[in-house]
Amino acid sequence: MSSLMGRMMRMPMLISSLLVHAARHSADTEIVSKRVEGDLHRYTYRDAELRARKVAQALARLGCEAGDRVATLAWNGYRHFEIYFGASGSQLVCHTINPRLFPEQIAWIAGDAADKVLCFDLTFLPLIEKLAPSLPSIEHFVLMTDRAHMPESSKIAGLLCYEELVEAENGHYAWPEFDENTASSICYTSGTTGHPKGAVYSHRSSVLHAYAAALPDAMCLSSADSVLPVVPMFHVNAWGVPYSAPLVGARLVFPGPHLDGKSLHELFEQEQVTFSAGVPTVWLGVINHMKNHGLKLSTLRRTVIGGSACPPAMMRTLEDDFGVEVIHAWGMTELSPLGTLSKLKTKHKALPVEAQRRLLEKQGRSIYGIDMCIVGADGKSLPWDGRSSGDLLVRGGWVIDGYFGRDESPLQEVDGQLWFPTGDVATIDADGFMQITDRSKDVIKSGGEWISSIDLENIAMAHPAVLEAAAIGCHHPKWDERPLLVVVRRPGKELTREEMLAFYEGRIAKWQIPDDVVFVDEIPHTATGKMLKLKLREQFKDHRLPGV
Amino acid sequence: MSSLMGRMMRMPMLISSLLVHAARHSADTEIVSKRVEGDLHRYTYRDAELRARKVAQALARLGCEAGDRVATLAWNGYRHFEIYFGASGSQLVCHTINPRLFPEQIAWIAGDAADKVLCFDLTFLPLIEKLAPSLPSIEHFVLMTDRAHMPESSKIAGLLCYEELVEAENGHYAWPEFDENTASSICYTSGTTGHPKGAVYSHRSSVLHAYAAALPDAMCLSSADSVLPVVPMFHVNAWGVPYSAPLVGARLVFPGPHLDGKSLHELFEQEQVTFSAGVPTVWLGVINHMKNHGLKLSTLRRTVIGGSACPPAMMRTLEDDFGVEVIHAWGMTELSPLGTLSKLKTKHKALPVEAQRRLLEKQGRSIYGIDMCIVGADGKSLPWDGRSSGDLLVRGGWVIDGYFGRDESPLQEVDGQLWFPTGDVATIDADGFMQITDRSKDVIKSGGEWISSIDLENIAMAHPAVLEAAAIGCHHPKWDERPLLVVVRRPGKELTREEMLAFYEGRIAKWQIPDDVVFVDEIPHTATGKMLKLKLREQFKDHRLPGV
Repeated sequence: MSSLMGRMMRMPMLISSLLVHAARHSADTEIVSKRVEGDLHRYTYRDAELRARKVAQALARLGCEAGDRVATLAWNGYRHFEIYFGASGSQLVCHTINPRLFPEQIAWIAGDAADKVLCFDLTFLPLIEKLAPSLPSIEHFVLMTDRAHMPESSKIAGLLCYEELVEAENGHYAWPEFDENTASSICYTSGTTGHPKGAVYSHRSSVLHAYAAALPDAMCLSSADSVLPVVPMFHVNAWGVPYSAPLVGARLVFPGPHLDGKSLHELFEQEQVTFSAGVPTVWLGVINHMKNHGLKLSTLRRTVIGGSACPPAMMRTLEDDFGVEVIHAWGMTELSPLGTLSKLKTKHKALPVEAQRRLLEKQGRSIYGIDMCIVGADGKSLPWDGRSSGDLLVRGGWVIDGYFGRDESPLQEVDGQLWFPTGDVATIDADGFMQITDRSKDVIKSGGEWISSIDLENIAMAHPAVLEAAAIGCHHPKWDERPLLVVVRRPGKELTREEMLAFYEGRIAKWQIPDDVVFVDEIPHTATGKMLKLKLREQFKDHRLPGV
Repeated sequence: MSSLMGRMMRMPMLISSLLVHAARHSADTEIVSKRVEGDLHRYTYRDAELRARKVAQALARLGCEAGDRVATLAWNGYRHFEIYFGASGSQLVCHTINPRLFPEQIAWIAGDAADKVLCFDLTFLPLIEKLAPSLPSIEHFVLMTDRAHMPESSKIAGLLCYEELVEAENGHYAWPEFDENTASSICYTSGTTGHPKGAVYSHRSSVLHAYAAALPDAMCLSSADSVLPVVPMFHVNAWGVPYSAPLVGARLVFPGPHLDGKSLHELFEQEQVTFSAGVPTVWLGVINHMKNHGLKLSTLRRTVIGGSACPPAMMRTLEDDFGVEVIHAWGMTELSPLGTLSKLKTKHKALPVEAQRRLLEKQGRSIYGIDMCIVGADGKSLPWDGRSSGDLLVRGGWVIDGYFGRDESPLQEVDGQLWFPTGDVATIDADGFMQITDRSKDVIKSGGEWISSIDLENIAMAHPAVLEAAAIGCHHPKWDERPLLVVVRRPGKELTREEMLAFYEGRIAKWQIPDDVVFVDEIPHTATGKMLKLKLREQFKDHRLPGV
């Protein structure tokens, strides 16, 4: 058998081509950035592409060679955007580091990735001055600012000025062509145990993800959009927005470090943002600010919310009170990150509004390019009936098959194919709507039955006096585990244990109602904003449930 | 320099994966087909995928091996859809033949492609019975119908019944994995001179095109759409709709051979179609039918119109009178076919409606994956100023780099890169909006200046008494060429030469107004509905312009 080959142009899918496309076809479309310095910076895709070429030249002049890692510790802004393309486009690897990690973790990650250059925002100068001695692989420290904002002296020997480096170059640089499976960027994911591990994206996976993320059933991005990614560029490439926006020629608005409700609301309004993307906690801030000051959103029409489950109450507030469509999404670092988004099909248009909402509250359906399955304890596929709950696995062109510098494969075989186990527990219904019911490690097992901690948390979050809530399993002599609810009260609000428990009546099966409620001042979070259940479980491991 | 490779799953982009995705994630989404037999057939993506597997088994049983060509001569319908996936998915090559070609051309094309199997609709039985002796490469003739509709006897020895072949299989078939650059399908393009040439699409190019075609600035396809492709599946894969629809899980409605205004309007309404795609002449029929019977469109909201330039008057009628957004598009067989679509950017929202419309009447902007340029007579790039007009060239992952079985490359070097010359003459403005001003062979050169035959035709088409109009260059002793307008009057309407010419006053520069008008009963067309200018020029080569 000899197959016939297509007669089509063979062009590698390279990240540089996204920006070149925008520079040619959306030349004067704006990129607006709120800077660390507080002012607004404006330029165009044409400018950005030229500057990205200068960044490529500057990195080469610093001695970077194909495959070298260029780390960033930076907010969402045009300079970070230039490094995304200047580094990846010139066959270097852009390694975005999360500045919210503990300093020791940052040093460990930079060492594990053997980063050669570190570019960082002014905000992080004190941090890096302290950390520099523990960053032996870094040959060049680049402060992402201009000469005027450079410190007069620094503990970092030979600290470089980003603007000086860039402006010293002439931009006469042709983006190279190379294998599309080449690494483009690295993002570390911090597990609850052990060291963080690096997901290594390729040019191909990033471009495919950029196509898929822009589809109508995903972010629905077009050249008529002004997009403000609240989700940080150090967090899984800001969910791919910096790639999808130039792909479609959307206007970009970067918020810099100004992520409080007031700053974001001002930027939404002032820059006529139509689309945004962020985690639930960010929206809490924006909603509170708007409610406290009687404000509205006049141009924002859609937002993707993911990172952790969006409480249904938040979805309704945004939709009913502020006219913003919430697109609930699920993904993870190992998925570049988008896996599923919740959008209705034709047939759901006929459903009552409440039934539509229940679907939209799920994590949603796979975009083409990602497939998923759920498996039971025996590793066998479970049916898509919306009830069977099992470990969620995924496969696709933007799913990792391993971690940076590690030989062992995280993949698992199901039905003769290799899948990536997500660590989430989920149901999938006949229409393909996936719903996370728990993390495999967070699940509460009561008398052999599973109770969804997420369901318990969502109900608690719907109570007006609750700011945040976590449900964890607590040891019980008879049932093995019973749910304990940990609650942070909203400032100035009263709430008793009994009121909280009464709130569950009629909202969930009686046997699933938590056995107890404790009030705390704060729930611990990971650097990416997820609740640290492990820490909570430790904190309450000796908690005595009533009647035990 | 040793580059670092990504650590992402490497999965080939295969056409089979589009249908598998739909079968898993949009299992019960309908595919509705109006059959040759006149009735409506309904089934789901799940059914279609199973049947496509059976088609793969049946083709293997007929002796087909990787790379073999399976030809179709068929309307838009579920069986044709099954062959698209069953053939391509099993590493065979689906060769769609245009039944509107002259019989000798069909035979020539089938011979050139060395087709092994020919599947055809009942409509074409008489044609194929006549042609069979001139189709020596065809080993199996398959009539796409069930046993009940098979002829009692046929001149075709061993004529096979599609339903019998398919239903004899058990569907226990795993879609094979192979190189994504493998040929998936062939479509011949009939030039105005010489033999037709085959564009050979690959799996990779088809999947990339399917992603791009579904983007918001392209067809904007989602699982909330019911899509009726009027453009035939024998014409550049129905502009990719059969691939993009399963990619997004859109409902599909196939019109079969029933392409008249009345049948289409009924199907739009009855099946609550939201999106359609077709050439201008098809819309003429639908509009006339609706106007004559005082009908409206209650669910259709958008349509892509391409294939040939959409007259502005038609765009306005569809938008103002029927509430249908017209997305003007340009492409060609060698481009799979989509190159550009006309959609406004953020900044255009502030323009007056008339200015917006003038933009939307252009052929539009490149989708990511396609780049374009225009060159002058010296082969050098021309500026994107909306005025400079030159030969249009394109490059991208779904552009051909050669034709089936031909060694010579059609590509041309511009600015150090290889491009495909489209044969169109166009302007591109600073926002990337491309506007076809002519075919390189159709251009009218008057005294060294170019006159756009398309502009002249669009103005004529806006006259209520004009059904169709063609502008051609006519010999002139002083100016070399001057425009001659060839007009088909609308039935029952009066129109004189003087009235037609007066209609141009104020609508175009005086020197561009045609020198003469002739009325004909019919303008000759190619099999794909384009006006045969070559034939017209021959017909009027001795025409004497007034005053000459």
